[in-house]
Amino acid sequence: MIQHLVVVKPRHPEGSAEESEFLKGCGLLATIPGVQNFELLRQVHPDTEYRLAFSMQFADQAAYDAYKVHPDHLAFVENVWKPAVEAGMDLDLVRLAPRGSYDQ
Amino acid sequence: MIQHLVVVKPRHPEGSAEESEFLKGCGLLATIPGVQNFELLRQVHPDTEYRLAFSMQFADQAAYDAYKVHPDHLAFVENVWKPAVEAGMDLDLVRLAPRGSYDQ
Repeated sequence: MIQHLVVVKPRHPEGSAEESEFLKGCGLLATIPGVQNFELLRQVHPDTEYRLAFSMQFADQAAYDAYKVHPDHLAFVENVWKPAVEAGMDLDLVRLAPRGSYDQ
Repeated sequence: MIQHLVVVKPRHPEGSAEESEFLKGCGLLATIPGVQNFELLRQVHPDTEYRLAFSMQFADQAAYDAYKVHPDHLAFVENVWKPAVEAGMDLDLVRLAPRGSYDQ
């Protein structure tokens, strides 16, 4: 399982119509095959400029690779992401096997 | 619910004894009151220098605030974090209420 978390510094202020449209556009990613447990998130820690995030999970690398080249994802990047995002960062998180004291 | 995700650029290479010690020290955070769903993670996206991460959840801000000042957390910062971490970033993620097309 791979968690794909994207953190975003949006161009538009919190609560704006543009932010709402951006979130709506992000939400469409949830319909792409292979995307599991899609979530829209607000990033509230003050020490980073990223203010929004979205998260999804893929069962394996093949599902993730198929998502990357899916036409709906490519359209998202052009039509939703580029107009709305000043800066973003991708994080791909895989769980480490538990061991030692944190093995619960 | 608040997800507290910390991404880490460690000083030591993947698979080293120092990394193993660092992960073991991080794992002790799971025993602090209020910490839920603790996970140790590897960050594998190539476009960022962060290579490890840990994640936990808090029921509310009060639980999170108590964690921040817990002696075990303060000891972790001094004894585990500072010797092992070249750079890190905190992300605090709260779920946005579903609305519009992503309301499932």
